[in-house]
Amino acid sequence: MTDEYFQQQAYREACRAFEEEEVPVGAVVVIRDTIVARGYNQVEKLNDATAHAEIIALTAAFQYTGSKYLPEATIYITVEPCLMCAGALYWSKIGRIVYGAHDEKNGYRKHLSIQADNKDQPWPFHPKTVLSAGLLGETCAQLMKDFFKERRKSRW
Amino acid sequence: MTDEYFQQQAYREACRAFEEEEVPVGAVVVIRDTIVARGYNQVEKLNDATAHAEIIALTAAFQYTGSKYLPEATIYITVEPCLMCAGALYWSKIGRIVYGAHDEKNGYRKHLSIQADNKDQPWPFHPKTVLSAGLLGETCAQLMKDFFKERRKSRW
Repeated sequence: MTDEYFQQQAYREACRAFEEEEVPVGAVVVIRDTIVARGYNQVEKLNDATAHAEIIALTAAFQYTGSKYLPEATIYITVEPCLMCAGALYWSKIGRIVYGAHDEKNGYRKHLSIQADNKDQPWPFHPKTVLSAGLLGETCAQLMKDFFKERRKSRW
Repeated sequence: MTDEYFQQQAYREACRAFEEEEVPVGAVVVIRDTIVARGYNQVEKLNDATAHAEIIALTAAFQYTGSKYLPEATIYITVEPCLMCAGALYWSKIGRIVYGAHDEKNGYRKHLSIQADNKDQPWPFHPKTVLSAGLLGETCAQLMKDFFKERRKSRW
């Protein structure tokens, strides 16, 4: 299985959020080529500002593995994680993070004043965590744009 | 009721965590002089790296109020929130944050490179959120020290 396949699966989760009128972000957690957890944004449904796709997927992965650390796992996320989710990923010691669209407004890099293409900057994740950004980025960003366009908001 | 009273209540929550062999952090959420939600660290019990006192208390407060925003609420926390919890507090738009002990290792200020007593710095919370640090700080820090001393770790 490829990164693109798993990112497509995260995108499917984001589409579920879209259909349920949630901000369309999705995530899957993969260990040894197997999806062990899925999540999509459920802030409205659960009436819980912390119910982001990543938090839901991580919690499910902790339950699946029986461990609160996920060094062998990769999380695929459709959109750059926010500060809260970056912090959750730090605690999880996740092995690898792949995300799609950049989020200029609420992405973790904004708060950490991180510029693109500069490696010598604050790193909120575990020191061993590997990060890849931009996979299916345009597709993931388009879903966000469509969502906010329908609501006449101009965020994306 | 005073801030000190409510911080004592957060400390009681931290003591519950201590008794259950969790890192001893506690939190309460107060709206109009009433405690509407409580939480203590349950990372080990729930096997979930995101089960911090603040996240548990915020989620309970969202349920109690029926709203995912808490502009009229104050959260009392025994220890400086980490990056994840700072992010959760951002999303909650909480009115006020009172915390006790500083956390040099995992507090949100470390990742944001925030120095003490400098107001002109990155602000991870909602623009209207008011912050007070240090209330019962030594008491809250001592509980942490006692916890890590028993485990022969040197963090506190």
